[in-house]
Amino acid sequence: MRTIILLTLGLSALAGARAQTPHRCKSPPYLEGKLTVMYPEEKTMIFEQMYYDAFEQRIRVIAAEKDPNQTQYIDRLMLFREMIYYEISYQNQSCVKRPLGLDFTPIEIPHDAQHTAQIVLGTLSAPGQGVLVNTWVGSMPEAHANYSMTVTEFGCIPITFLYHVEKFGYIIASYYDIVVGIENPEVFVPPPFCADAKLEEQSDGRVADFFTALL
Amino acid sequence: MRTIILLTLGLSALAGARAQTPHRCKSPPYLEGKLTVMYPEEKTMIFEQMYYDAFEQRIRVIAAEKDPNQTQYIDRLMLFREMIYYEISYQNQSCVKRPLGLDFTPIEIPHDAQHTAQIVLGTLSAPGQGVLVNTWVGSMPEAHANYSMTVTEFGCIPITFLYHVEKFGYIIASYYDIVVGIENPEVFVPPPFCADAKLEEQSDGRVADFFTALL
Repeated sequence: MRTIILLTLGLSALAGARAQTPHRCKSPPYLEGKLTVMYPEEKTMIFEQMYYDAFEQRIRVIAAEKDPNQTQYIDRLMLFREMIYYEISYQNQSCVKRPLGLDFTPIEIPHDAQHTAQIVLGTLSAPGQGVLVNTWVGSMPEAHANYSMTVTEFGCIPITFLYHVEKFGYIIASYYDIVVGIENPEVFVPPPFCADAKLEEQSDGRVADFFTALL
Repeated sequence: MRTIILLTLGLSALAGARAQTPHRCKSPPYLEGKLTVMYPEEKTMIFEQMYYDAFEQRIRVIAAEKDPNQTQYIDRLMLFREMIYYEISYQNQSCVKRPLGLDFTPIEIPHDAQHTAQIVLGTLSAPGQGVLVNTWVGSMPEAHANYSMTVTEFGCIPITFLYHVEKFGYIIASYYDIVVGIENPEVFVPPPFCADAKLEEQSDGRVADFFTALL
């Protein structure tokens, strides 16, 4: 019987831990770090260096997108308050400036998310050997998407965000090497050769919603 | 240029960090914790409560295996030194005893594994908000498999073991809620109603190798 209880306790971990209901949280306003974004159904993987400023609503993403046929490099500065984004090529010293048709979405647990699990990655048996994280699930009806967000219990640092979007399938974003703060605030300033870039009237549709902003 | 350097640094993270070459390590001999094992190609997922004793080469696994059609519960005690395993049913108070045709494989980084990445899950910007982990890759020619093993830098606690096995496809084992030690050593002792179980001469082929031992 004891084993059956253990089994029940053990296996309900992903559905359980409701009794503790940790608080929904918001990540620190300044973050930089790395991110892999997987689109398993398209066999595409994106490796990103990400800079995040929730105060001034700016995100810089420098990415390599690998699909089975090619690797594509993208350097994108999104200025949500100005509602524009730049695609920057240092190699060509060129810059494309386009309208940004979406609102800034901070890294946070939405107010209507449901807490679904609290787990330890690694162990808490000794210091430095593990980290306590919470997983929250919910849906974004306007985007026809469901999500599962895992963030650290202390600090609300993103770990893994999993989305199931009607039109894309699964998207798995795994964060790592996160540093709280911005080492070089100039990452949010368009480089000098962008000064002459004219705003293209048409968006190319690439940064049309929250999911394409992630890339 | 600086951005290109950052890009290179950022994107090489998974391939990089070779200069540090942390030491191959072995997990603590007593562990208990949880494990999800995914077989994405079969759309099967197994939730396990696991007890691990590397000194006496004993593993107890209590598992729920979910595939799209059904859920199957398994309670298995593997005694590698005696080369037998028990499948235990508390509900039926019954026990099946079978030969175990494989050697004990400790949770460790194999001596010929290559270090491929050192990353932080979460952040080291504040205590309790992240954990430093190492990823090692290699191959197991006798099992026709490749692996990627991620363990904590301190303590060598398993985080994620990914295998690509010729005959199975991908297997992703994610460990969590690990505790160093064994709370109740009786998990390694067959329950009284197993005393009468006769050793079945034939293995059922279910625990035939390292991967089926994981379930």
